[in-house]
Amino acid sequence: MTKKIILDCDPGHDDAVAILLALGNPTIDLLGVTTVGGNQSLEKVTYNARAVLEKAGATDVPVHAGCGRPLIREPEAAASIHGESGLDGVELPVPSRPLDPGHAVNWIIDTIMNNPPETITLVPTGPLTNIALAARLEPRIVDRVKEVVLMGGGYHVGNWSAVAEFNIKVDPEAAHIVFNEAWPLTMVGLDLTHQALCTPAVQRQVEGVGTDLAMFVSGLMDFFRKSYQENQDFVDPPVHDPCTVAYLIDPTVITTRRCPLDVEIHGDLTLGMTVADLRGPEPAPEECHTQVAVKLDHKKFWDLIVDALQRLG
Amino acid sequence: MTKKIILDCDPGHDDAVAILLALGNPTIDLLGVTTVGGNQSLEKVTYNARAVLEKAGATDVPVHAGCGRPLIREPEAAASIHGESGLDGVELPVPSRPLDPGHAVNWIIDTIMNNPPETITLVPTGPLTNIALAARLEPRIVDRVKEVVLMGGGYHVGNWSAVAEFNIKVDPEAAHIVFNEAWPLTMVGLDLTHQALCTPAVQRQVEGVGTDLAMFVSGLMDFFRKSYQENQDFVDPPVHDPCTVAYLIDPTVITTRRCPLDVEIHGDLTLGMTVADLRGPEPAPEECHTQVAVKLDHKKFWDLIVDALQRLG
Amino acid sequence: MTKKIILDCDPGHDDAVAILLALGNPTIDLLGVTTVGGNQSLEKVTYNARAVLEKAGATDVPVHAGCGRPLIREPEAAASIHGESGLDGVELPVPSRPLDPGHAVNWIIDTIMNNPPETITLVPTGPLTNIALAARLEPRIVDRVKEVVLMGGGYHVGNWSAVAEFNIKVDPEAAHIVFNEAWPLTMVGLDLTHQALCTPAVQRQVEGVGTDLAMFVSGLMDFFRKSYQENQDFVDPPVHDPCTVAYLIDPTVITTRRCPLDVEIHGDLTLGMTVADLRGPEPAPEECHTQVAVKLDHKKFWDLIVDALQRLG
Amino acid sequence: MTKKIILDCDPGHDDAVAILLALGNPTIDLLGVTTVGGNQSLEKVTYNARAVLEKAGATDVPVHAGCGRPLIREPEAAASIHGESGLDGVELPVPSRPLDPGHAVNWIIDTIMNNPPETITLVPTGPLTNIALAARLEPRIVDRVKEVVLMGGGYHVGNWSAVAEFNIKVDPEAAHIVFNEAWPLTMVGLDLTHQALCTPAVQRQVEGVGTDLAMFVSGLMDFFRKSYQENQDFVDPPVHDPCTVAYLIDPTVITTRRCPLDVEIHGDLTLGMTVADLRGPEPAPEECHTQVAVKLDHKKFWDLIVDALQRLG
Repeated sequence: MTKKIILDCDPGHDDAVAILLALGNPTIDLLGVTTVGGNQSLEKVTYNARAVLEKAGATDVPVHAGCGRPLIREPEAAASIHGESGLDGVELPVPSRPLDPGHAVNWIIDTIMNNPPETITLVPTGPLTNIALAARLEPRIVDRVKEVVLMGGGYHVGNWSAVAEFNIKVDPEAAHIVFNEAWPLTMVGLDLTHQALCTPAVQRQVEGVGTDLAMFVSGLMDFFRKSYQENQDFVDPPVHDPCTVAYLIDPTVITTRRCPLDVEIHGDLTLGMTVADLRGPEPAPEECHTQVAVKLDHKKFWDLIVDALQRLG
Repeated sequence: MTKKIILDCDPGHDDAVAILLALGNPTIDLLGVTTVGGNQSLEKVTYNARAVLEKAGATDVPVHAGCGRPLIREPEAAASIHGESGLDGVELPVPSRPLDPGHAVNWIIDTIMNNPPETITLVPTGPLTNIALAARLEPRIVDRVKEVVLMGGGYHVGNWSAVAEFNIKVDPEAAHIVFNEAWPLTMVGLDLTHQALCTPAVQRQVEGVGTDLAMFVSGLMDFFRKSYQENQDFVDPPVHDPCTVAYLIDPTVITTRRCPLDVEIHGDLTLGMTVADLRGPEPAPEECHTQVAVKLDHKKFWDLIVDALQRLG
Repeated sequence: MTKKIILDCDPGHDDAVAILLALGNPTIDLLGVTTVGGNQSLEKVTYNARAVLEKAGATDVPVHAGCGRPLIREPEAAASIHGESGLDGVELPVPSRPLDPGHAVNWIIDTIMNNPPETITLVPTGPLTNIALAARLEPRIVDRVKEVVLMGGGYHVGNWSAVAEFNIKVDPEAAHIVFNEAWPLTMVGLDLTHQALCTPAVQRQVEGVGTDLAMFVSGLMDFFRKSYQENQDFVDPPVHDPCTVAYLIDPTVITTRRCPLDVEIHGDLTLGMTVADLRGPEPAPEECHTQVAVKLDHKKFWDLIVDALQRLG
Repeated sequence: MTKKIILDCDPGHDDAVAILLALGNPTIDLLGVTTVGGNQSLEKVTYNARAVLEKAGATDVPVHAGCGRPLIREPEAAASIHGESGLDGVELPVPSRPLDPGHAVNWIIDTIMNNPPETITLVPTGPLTNIALAARLEPRIVDRVKEVVLMGGGYHVGNWSAVAEFNIKVDPEAAHIVFNEAWPLTMVGLDLTHQALCTPAVQRQVEGVGTDLAMFVSGLMDFFRKSYQENQDFVDPPVHDPCTVAYLIDPTVITTRRCPLDVEIHGDLTLGMTVADLRGPEPAPEECHTQVAVKLDHKKFWDLIVDALQRLG
C-alpha cells in the first residue's frame, strides 16, 4: 500500500532530493508539492519546485504556493547555503506545467478533508508557516492527518544559532503551533540529518546511476558541499530533507525516540530551539505523541536515493 | 456615499450594539459579520451574531464563522463580563438564516479582493486572529483595504492586566501582526471607550425609542452594568465596540492622535500591551499610518445609537 | 526634626540641583552622597558629586563611589543630555576633600544598620544598582529604612523608550529588585518631573539670588535647556531629581497616589517600564506600600530651590 | 604547590563530599567555605557546612554565610533531593567553631584582593548569587582570580527542567553575570556529573576505608541514592559537586572542551539553560575563556575521594 504525502518545502538543494526520492520510490504517492518562503523567497522556491518536477518528468504533480513570510518575525533566507536562486549550481528546465491556482494552505486543508481519515502524511521540510496556518484555519485536520514527519530542529544540535535550526528559527511561532497540536509528529532534526552526509563515495554511487537526473543531483551536491565547507565547517554536506521521506518508505532507516517536544519562542539565546525532554525512562508514555529521530542507517538511506534515481531514469 | 464595512466580532453585549449601529445607520453598508472566539467560544458568539441580526430583521447580512482560538496562546473567555452565553441577560430569537458556508478568513479575503481597491473597511471588535490570518494568507489585502478601525488595546488604560486590554491580550501575536502591517489603522482603545459610558440618562434615552429592539438593548445594558459594577469597579458600563462604527459614521465623534503603535508579545507584566509612542511633536509624521482614539463626544455618540434604533424600528 | 537622607545619584545637571536643595534646606540632613554609573561613567559622576559639594562649601559631606555598571545589561550613558563630562556647561572647582574609602553599597548598609530603625530615607536619583545590591547583601535594611523616594520611571510617560525612563531602563533588573522589596516606596517619575520645568521666569528667579552658586545653577540650566530642546522636543528642561528632595521637605509639593508598582524586565518594547496598576478604586489598600507622584506644585517647588540657594549663600 | 580555593556551596550531600575531598587532598588549600541559599535555606546550609567541617575535624576553616535568596527570582529549594535539613540521612555533630563574622561576598572580595594575583580559585557548587554580587561589588576580582571551576548547568542535560540544571535555574541572572565575566571558567555540568555515579561497588570501596567519616559519607550516599531513585529515575546517584575539586587536584580526571558559554535568562522553556556553542572546529579560539567538562575518569575520581577519606582518618 502506498503512502500519500504532501511535501511542504522550500527548494533548496536537499528539498530537491526529497522531491526526487518521493517521486522515484514506488511506496510513496506524492499528492502535491506546496511551497513556503524559507531558503529563498516564495517566488524562487516555488519556481524551483516546479523546475525539479519538470526535470524528473513529473508534470502530473501539482504545485501550490503558500506563505511568503513567517507569522511574526521578519523573513530571513539561507542564501549562504543555497545561493541566490535557492538552487544554485545546476541548470533548471523551464516548467511546462503552470503554477496551480489556490493557496497552499487551502489546498492542504481541502486535500486532507477530502481524503479518508488518517491517510495523508504531511512532510514539511521548510519553515512551518503553511502547516501552522492550516491547523489554525481548519483545526479538524489535526485529527484527520495520519502523521507529520518534518525536517527541522535538533535536540542537541543547532545551525542557525548555537541551539536552533534554520527552519524552526525563521518561524518559531509557526513551529510552536505545529509542535503543540496533538497529531503524531516525528522531528527529523539536525541530530539525525548531520549523519546523512553525502560523502565522495556516496556521490560516486549517485553518479554511477549514469542518467542526466543523477548528474543533476551530483551537481546539486557539488554546490552543497562547497556551501557547507565554507559556511558551516563541514567536509561533506548533510542532506537533510530526504531523511523524512526515507523514514516513511522504510522506518528502519531511522531509529527514533519518543519524548515530549516543544519550541522556545521567547528566549534570547534559545529562540527557535526545539526543546526535547529526554529525562526519565525510555520510552516515554504512550500518550506522548512526539518523537525525535536519533540514528540514521547511512547505507540504507543512500541506497533508497540511488534506487529512486534509477527508477526515475 | 456609504461605507462598506466588515464587522469582525465576538458578541458580546457591546458587539451587539455595534452590529445594530451598523445596521441602523444609513451611511454604513454592512457587507457581513465575521466571528472569532473571544468573549465566549466561537460557537456561542457565532450564534449570538446571527441572533442579533435576526432580532434586527437583518437576515440579508451573511455571517461567517472564523477562528475559534488564538494563534499561540490558550483560549480565554470573558465570562465575568458577558456571562456564560456571551450575551447573558436578554432573550435571543432563533436565527432563521443558516450560518453561511466558508471560513471567515477566506470570506474576508475574497470580499476585499473582489471589491474595488480601498473600498472596504475592516472593523474588528474582538481578538485579531481572523484579521491576522487573512493578512498572512493573502498579503495583498493590506494594500487593498481602505482602513482598519478596531476596538482593542489602550495607550494608558488596561482591563485584563494593569496595561493590557482583553481583545489584544488574548491573542497578542495576532494583534502584533495586524498592528505591524502598513494599512491605515485606528486603535479605539480603552482610553476612548471608557468615556462611552451608558449612564442612566443615556439608558432612559435608549428606552425612550420605545421599540422592542430598544428594550432589548436596554436589557443588554442592565446586564452589562451589573458585570462592570461587580468585576471592574465601574458605576456605568463602558460600551466599547460601537465607538468604532460611530467613528466611521462621523469622524467628529472621536478626536484622534497619530502616533506609532506596536504590541508587546514578550513582556511578563506587559504582555499584550499596545505601546503608543507619544513622545515628540504632534502630529506624528505623515508616514505614520497608525492613530489612537483620544476623546469621545459622548452626546454625539449616543445620539447616533438612538438614531439607529429609531430607524431600525 | 530633620530628615536624614542618603542621596544615591549620578550627577548630572538635575542631580546637582538635588544635592544643593538637600544641602540648603534646614529640614534635610544629608548624611552622605553615594554615586552610581548612569548619566556618565562612575568616575565622572563621582568627581561631579564631589565638585558640586565643594562648590557649595559642603566639604563635611562624605562621598562614596558605588557600582560602575548595571547588574546584567551593558552600561549606557546619557551623554546627549548631560554632555561628555556628565555636567557640561559649567566650570567645576577641584574637590578639596578626598574621595571617601569604602564602597557605596557597604556604606549605605552600615549607615542604615548603625542608625536607629526608620530614621534613614534613601533618595536614589540614578540607576538603582547600588540600592539593589545593598538590599541583596543585607536584607535587613529593607525593614530598617524609613522609606525610599526615588526619581525614575513613569506610569504614562517614557523618555528612553516609548514607555521607559532612563534610570530604570539602564538597569531594569536592579529596579525590579528595589520595587519588589517591602519598603515604603515613592516613585517620582516622568509624569511628575515633566511638570518641574525650568521656565525662563524660574531661571530669572534663580539668578535673582545673585550669588555665585545661583549663577552656577543658571549655567547648568542653560546647558540642560539646550539638551532638552535638541534631543527631547522640550522648550524648557524638566528638572527631575530635586523633586524627590522637595517632596521630603514638604509633602504638599507633590500629590501622590497609592498603587501597585512593578518593573518589566522581559518585554521587547516595554523593557524597563514601571508598570503601575491604576485600575480599581482609589486609594489602593493600605497594604500597598508603593505610590506614584502625580501632580507638582510648580511654584512651591521652585521656591524651595531658590530658598535653598539663598541659604547656601 | 597547593591550590588555594574558596568553596562556595549549599550543602547538600554532594557539597559535603566536595568539602571532604578538598580537606583531605594535600594539593588543595581550602581557605574557607562560603554558603549560599540553594539546596536549602541559607541558615540550614550554613549550619551543614559548619557541621561537616566539624565532622572532619577541620575547625580551622572559616565559614562565611552569604546570600539567602536569588538576585531576581523567588527562592526555590531542592528538598526532594536533599531532604528538609539539606543533609538528611546522617547525624551531624554540633559545630564548635562559631560562624565567622562578615558577609561571604565581602570575605570573598577581601580574600582575592589580599592574595597575590591569580592565586585564588573560586569553586562554586551552588547558585551563583554570591559570586555574581562579588563581581559587581568589586569588578577587579575578575582579573585577579586564577579561575572559576563551577558545578552547574549542562550543555545537553537538564534536571530542574528539560534543559536547565538546579544551580543555574534558581538564579539564572547571577549565572548570567558569572558566565559573562572574562575570567577562565570551567563548567562542570550534568553532562559530566551524571557520569560520577556512586555505584554499589564504589560505595563498598568508600566503606572499606573503615573510618567513622567514611561511614558518614556512605550514609549520605544511602539517602542520595534513594532521592535520585524516587525523584530523578536514577539507579545510582550522581555525586556532582566533588567533580570540581577532583578536576583541580588532577586535570586528567576530566576531559574538557573549550567553547563559548552563556546563560538564557528570558526563555519560557529554556530559562536557566547554559547555552554552549559547540558548532565549528575544535578547539575553540584561544580567546574563548570558557570550557565545559565532557568526560569523567570514573575510577580516578572515586580513587581521589577514597584517598581523601583515608587521609582524613
